[in-house]
Amino acid sequence: MPESGKIYNVSELPVSTDSLQLDFRTHPDRYRHWKLTTAGAVANLDMDVSEDDGAFPGYELKLNSYDIGVDIELYDAIQRLRFEHPQVKTVVVSSNKPTMFCAGANIRMLAGASHGHKVNFCKFTNETRNAIEDAGEFSGQRYLCALNGTAAGGGYELALAMDYLILIDDGNAAVSLPEIPLLAVLPGTGGLTRVVDKRKVRRDLADVFCTVEEGVKGQRALDWRLVDEIVPGSQFAQRVAERAGEMSRMSDRPGNAQGVILTPLSRKTAADSLEYDWLDLSIDRKHRNVTLHVRAPGSAAPDTMADAIVLGDRFWPLALARQLDDALLHLRFNEPDIGTIIITSAGAAGTVSGYDAFLQRHQDNWLIREIILYWKRTLKRLDLTSRTSFAFIEPGSCFAGLLAEFLFAVDRSYMLDGRFEDDDTPAATIVLSESNFGPLPMCNGLTRLETRFLGEPGSVAAAREHIGRELDAALAAELGLVTFTPDDIDWEDEIRMLLEERASFSPDALVGMEANLRFAGPETLETKIFGRLTAWQNWIFQRPNAVSDAGALRRYGTGLRPEYDKNRV
Amino acid sequence: MPESGKIYNVSELPVSTDSLQLDFRTHPDRYRHWKLTTAGAVANLDMDVSEDDGAFPGYELKLNSYDIGVDIELYDAIQRLRFEHPQVKTVVVSSNKPTMFCAGANIRMLAGASHGHKVNFCKFTNETRNAIEDAGEFSGQRYLCALNGTAAGGGYELALAMDYLILIDDGNAAVSLPEIPLLAVLPGTGGLTRVVDKRKVRRDLADVFCTVEEGVKGQRALDWRLVDEIVPGSQFAQRVAERAGEMSRMSDRPGNAQGVILTPLSRKTAADSLEYDWLDLSIDRKHRNVTLHVRAPGSAAPDTMADAIVLGDRFWPLALARQLDDALLHLRFNEPDIGTIIITSAGAAGTVSGYDAFLQRHQDNWLIREIILYWKRTLKRLDLTSRTSFAFIEPGSCFAGLLAEFLFAVDRSYMLDGRFEDDDTPAATIVLSESNFGPLPMCNGLTRLETRFLGEPGSVAAAREHIGRELDAALAAELGLVTFTPDDIDWEDEIRMLLEERASFSPDALVGMEANLRFAGPETLETKIFGRLTAWQNWIFQRPNAVSDAGALRRYGTGLRPEYDKNRV
Repeated sequence: MPESGKIYNVSELPVSTDSLQLDFRTHPDRYRHWKLTTAGAVANLDMDVSEDDGAFPGYELKLNSYDIGVDIELYDAIQRLRFEHPQVKTVVVSSNKPTMFCAGANIRMLAGASHGHKVNFCKFTNETRNAIEDAGEFSGQRYLCALNGTAAGGGYELALAMDYLILIDDGNAAVSLPEIPLLAVLPGTGGLTRVVDKRKVRRDLADVFCTVEEGVKGQRALDWRLVDEIVPGSQFAQRVAERAGEMSRMSDRPGNAQGVILTPLSRKTAADSLEYDWLDLSIDRKHRNVTLHVRAPGSAAPDTMADAIVLGDRFWPLALARQLDDALLHLRFNEPDIGTIIITSAGAAGTVSGYDAFLQRHQDNWLIREIILYWKRTLKRLDLTSRTSFAFIEPGSCFAGLLAEFLFAVDRSYMLDGRFEDDDTPAATIVLSESNFGPLPMCNGLTRLETRFLGEPGSVAAAREHIGRELDAALAAELGLVTFTPDDIDWEDEIRMLLEERASFSPDALVGMEANLRFAGPETLETKIFGRLTAWQNWIFQRPNAVSDAGALRRYGTGLRPEYDKNRV
Repeated sequence: MPESGKIYNVSELPVSTDSLQLDFRTHPDRYRHWKLTTAGAVANLDMDVSEDDGAFPGYELKLNSYDIGVDIELYDAIQRLRFEHPQVKTVVVSSNKPTMFCAGANIRMLAGASHGHKVNFCKFTNETRNAIEDAGEFSGQRYLCALNGTAAGGGYELALAMDYLILIDDGNAAVSLPEIPLLAVLPGTGGLTRVVDKRKVRRDLADVFCTVEEGVKGQRALDWRLVDEIVPGSQFAQRVAERAGEMSRMSDRPGNAQGVILTPLSRKTAADSLEYDWLDLSIDRKHRNVTLHVRAPGSAAPDTMADAIVLGDRFWPLALARQLDDALLHLRFNEPDIGTIIITSAGAAGTVSGYDAFLQRHQDNWLIREIILYWKRTLKRLDLTSRTSFAFIEPGSCFAGLLAEFLFAVDRSYMLDGRFEDDDTPAATIVLSESNFGPLPMCNGLTRLETRFLGEPGSVAAAREHIGRELDAALAAELGLVTFTPDDIDWEDEIRMLLEERASFSPDALVGMEANLRFAGPETLETKIFGRLTAWQNWIFQRPNAVSDAGALRRYGTGLRPEYDKNRV
């Protein structure tokens, strides 16, 4: 175990980041790196990273550089802003450090982290950036980036996710992506894509920008479309406040609604299991899989919106989304050798459908909108989780509406045709609802059913005609909604062989395969970032030029120049 | 040096593939692996790989497996079919081996090849597959894949590139992508993307297909959209002939035109240079760059189409395209440590414009159409070449029309503002033509100017208004057509620093950066394959699960099971 307090040289970092357990639960009262304050329609989220509070030993978080711990707090703040603060229409993100907005991901942390941690860290950070964009686009909560100092690397990537960027024009503050010249890696959280695809910076200027260590400031940053506005220091605070007001006036968020407090998520942890209120994880280490078992709510959906608000974060769709979100993050970071996620469910499908209908009925209410958007983001997180996913649909399951969406998110689904011998539980059915036809798009902008039926669009319409009906295995198969429908005689053998086979494959090859097969169809900023940019980054994170002892990541700050293999491949 | 004739164990392959020099020039008379015959509107291209004629020592090309040498011949055949055989409307691709159409890329070759060779091999093979698709879509020359035996891995990927797939239904012949279960790598030439995005196979069925070693045959292959038709052996030949006839009737290629013979490409090779008729390469090994110098034609464009036909492959636009194509392939495979391509030009811009206008005027002629399409494909090859590219626009240059397109293909362009001191050559200008506004799209489906000006579409229209005008540095800069315009005082220093700086960066990081910055905007099958799939493949080709001594690629065929690190990242 590392001695706490000691600063390790990265090359002797004593603890693999893989073996550390991360907890994603936090609260503004416990933030070490951010200050969140609200005043009317505007919230201020100030970055003030505590140097000595890195998530792992071995580095100091100087100059507002960040690690996973900093980003866990940021993610928490973003979630609370949406649920707890309905009146907040503009979030102003700035820095409490002089002259530095944010120096990006901590380099010593990256140098010491395992490949797996680096990849998962970048993915989570990307998802958090996407959540910022999602808030502006769908929730009426826009982010104003008040760049009161330099934003370098991941710091500028954080800025790029926001709706409006104001850079202080003081002759010093710059925006930069110095990863390539300095560290021999790519900006890891969407920077390249957002520069050319979101901000539409001309590609030759982008090439210059991404190879200039010191970045670009002032008028040139504006001319090159890298920021939206530059303001002298003397007018900076005033202009930021003014612009925040303008942005707030564009929002449809309610001024006077009561927020929902996100209370601490309770869960029971054991060696091979994790239990939440509506969700269990049970791990089979031998076969390297985990069963993610979802439970229907115990009682019917509330009658009125007021009743739902009284329930707060105990309202089943919100409670389950939070638990699912936490469970997926736990699996990614804390269980790297569990390769397959099996999704099962149990409970009254009718009750699930009741909640589903409630969400549809009240979709214009700000809170219900937030809950649906949270499901959208969480299902995307499942899509983007680099583990195989299967769904098993057995008697007693409740894959209806919102929960049926799991069946279209997984790599394959198996539905028992009929009952198990010696078991009275009626044969499984699945039930579609409007939830499967619009409100929960994937990263590619299509619904999961649209993606599934790219080659036969008529099948989407055919499925839609069956909304609300209990579809048995034969009908589900005919409609193309499930992969296989073995009967009782074959079920056990088929499942066993499936899981053994999957566990025998190379995890890397499966990651690459699934990333390609899951996202057919159109491309978006998100699919470009996760599908293209991430893959290149993964590759570069493996290359000696970056990560060997003589590579740039390791040599950064040592005074030694990195040594590069100059072959181009 | 390897002893010729000896079969090496891959783990002792004595020669790095990097140090071997490849020549892309060949001719049907010298093919070792393919038989090309034509009869009226139909050509037959039969794969019959010669086991002992691998491009490198160390493996036997059994069961119609292929290596770069097999693909060089295929590429040559495809080119000749377009230019030399205007009357050919359908190309039937089949196998001369019993029961095996093609077993894919040779595994021992892959196991022994360097990372760089594997990546470049996959890229070239992908480009050749794209050329097949391009012929069907734009040239009226469609490919019918007569799967008279099993198509495995790269063999099925070759089939996937064709317009129509007929699989023999004999209880044995299957299509398969066994790379993931068998080799722990991805199908390397677009297979995953073409399965879900081109053939639009349902993603869960695709998951099954890509993990079943033995593949899928007969009715299931048809039901899953993996082939277009299945035919019993007794009717196979007849049905293939019939379908070839149907496909030929869809074509607009001329029945009676005279083809243009592609004569042997002459070039003069020295240690640091390569000279073609209209193109020179000169290499600066110290700074790891190459200057690709293009020359304008010596005489004016022909008056009539008949005059152009008489010139045959000496017609400047065709001759230069061939030379450029060969030069790019040479650089990729034979000069892996040359990181930067500098494009320069010299000659009479007016003459270039004359040829450019000739191409526009005769664009409906089959031959001119082929020449323009060849330029399109070759410029795409430049876009996809993983080297930095710069253009230097100096007095005496001739970047007009077709050649101006280079300026929008490169990562940056530098244009001298004014003359060099003590040199009477007039200041450089560039000249736009219709060639820059439509006929030469990138892989993303947009023109290079549309991609360049994604953020300011008005700039495309503004540039278009300047067609035919000689644009000096100031105007070119104002129109956003060049990156920087130093004057004589700064030029030399700026260029020197630029080249030194670029050479100091990690090649891997530059590869990843350029791949992301070059292809902003919409995505297509091609960008998905090159941007997404290739990146994942590159990553997996680095991972021990595939390429270590205990990895699947190395252990294939040894009887030993591969050992996998089971962490998912």
